[in-house]
Amino acid sequence: MEKPQIHVIKIGGNIIDDPEALNSFLRDFASMKGLKILVHGGGKIVTQMAKDLGIESQMVDGRRVTDAKSLQIVTMVYAGWINKSIVAALQSKKCKALGLTGPDGGLIKAEKRNPIPIDFGFVGDITEVNAKDLSQWVHMGYIPVFAPITSDEGGQLLNTNADTLAQAIAISLTTYFDVDLVYCFEKHGVLKDPADENSVIPMINLAIFESLKKDGIVSSGMIPKLENALTAISKGVKVVRLCHADDLHYANKGTQIKA
Amino acid sequence: MEKPQIHVIKIGGNIIDDPEALNSFLRDFASMKGLKILVHGGGKIVTQMAKDLGIESQMVDGRRVTDAKSLQIVTMVYAGWINKSIVAALQSKKCKALGLTGPDGGLIKAEKRNPIPIDFGFVGDITEVNAKDLSQWVHMGYIPVFAPITSDEGGQLLNTNADTLAQAIAISLTTYFDVDLVYCFEKHGVLKDPADENSVIPMINLAIFESLKKDGIVSSGMIPKLENALTAISKGVKVVRLCHADDLHYANKGTQIKA
Repeated sequence: MEKPQIHVIKIGGNIIDDPEALNSFLRDFASMKGLKILVHGGGKIVTQMAKDLGIESQMVDGRRVTDAKSLQIVTMVYAGWINKSIVAALQSKKCKALGLTGPDGGLIKAEKRNPIPIDFGFVGDITEVNAKDLSQWVHMGYIPVFAPITSDEGGQLLNTNADTLAQAIAISLTTYFDVDLVYCFEKHGVLKDPADENSVIPMINLAIFESLKKDGIVSSGMIPKLENALTAISKGVKVVRLCHADDLHYANKGTQIKA
Repeated sequence: MEKPQIHVIKIGGNIIDDPEALNSFLRDFASMKGLKILVHGGGKIVTQMAKDLGIESQMVDGRRVTDAKSLQIVTMVYAGWINKSIVAALQSKKCKALGLTGPDGGLIKAEKRNPIPIDFGFVGDITEVNAKDLSQWVHMGYIPVFAPITSDEGGQLLNTNADTLAQAIAISLTTYFDVDLVYCFEKHGVLKDPADENSVIPMINLAIFESLKKDGIVSSGMIPKLENALTAISKGVKVVRLCHADDLHYANKGTQIKA
């Protein structure tokens, strides 16, 4: 039997920071046919809020550490302000959005990242997605909108990477659906030359990825995103694409990820 | 045909501010038999957060005005930090909690309060609760946990009184359920003498309420809570009770509201 199709769309922080770009994206998302799920990231508002509250970001090896105060801020901003603003905006566009985080409905289980060798604080790695319950909601007509906050068995909230959350959701749904995963951001795809928006690399597979890494063409920020995308493809997601938020409806635009 | 029973429980800000009291309450709530819904309020953390961000509360006639910045803070704190902390804690107690606000799933419709005669800013009055969809979730085994944030048709988020939200949800569910509504707070009920926790008034009906108001026994903060409770009873909610958060399981404790 053929599986129904579902779209898992991730929207990045730079789009969320730009009210006009976000509104335009949400209009496109709302008008998208078929079953769909949205995963959103953070944005500059977290950094601004931390600054306004006089909290300094701790960094280890160039990566942010989530201490107790930072966890509170990301939970407030991601699961509170951004998630509910998006849900309310989608509802106003006749899209039956339902805001969610990991603990909601027991959908996603996570565990605190091992503090050895590096203690990143309250950061969560996903261990399980309840794809059965999630697919039931989707079939009921709800459009889940996920903020990248999860929790562990003990009820500890955890900051979670939104790209990885989108990937984990997409992979889990392959049991029930033909899944495509689209990472929407402020670039037109993976660029050969970061300064040239016309230099989109149309297709990346594992071999091309390794060579791009070796040649220093993909940046440190792009590498984990591409690793997430390649993992998704290797674990049964049918189509993975990285594209500009404006190009959600144009399946041939951006960078396609292949096995 | 007899209707199934459902408990709508509202938990106040003073309990939320006290981690030990909150944890004890959540343990009681998780162990409560039958279908149930939790509605939570705010707490001092909003005031502290506003202070830390250097935002001054605007007051008109002794009531707080929700300007754009305050709306952002209450949405972050109520729908983000408090809601997700409670949901994660309940999940850790094997309670299938699902965090919600008005726009989630299109459950609650609200409109911005008329700015005439007093402009309270982004404050929402509830116009409709989709009791059919809500009862479907409850029957599926989910335990909705509502933060007092709603939105209007245009996608504008709105700050909403949590007591009124609990009342509106309870009333709407009377179509499908025998509803009881419990307001849990830091007092042992409505007190004759605010300084004496043993002076609980065991029963209040409309006539008693009017006389308590006339004699100045109920405070300005208690009046809208009692009005909410009396409205709930007059609109079909079977039992309404105001009690200490520790007395959730003791149906004979606190103040009963009668028609």
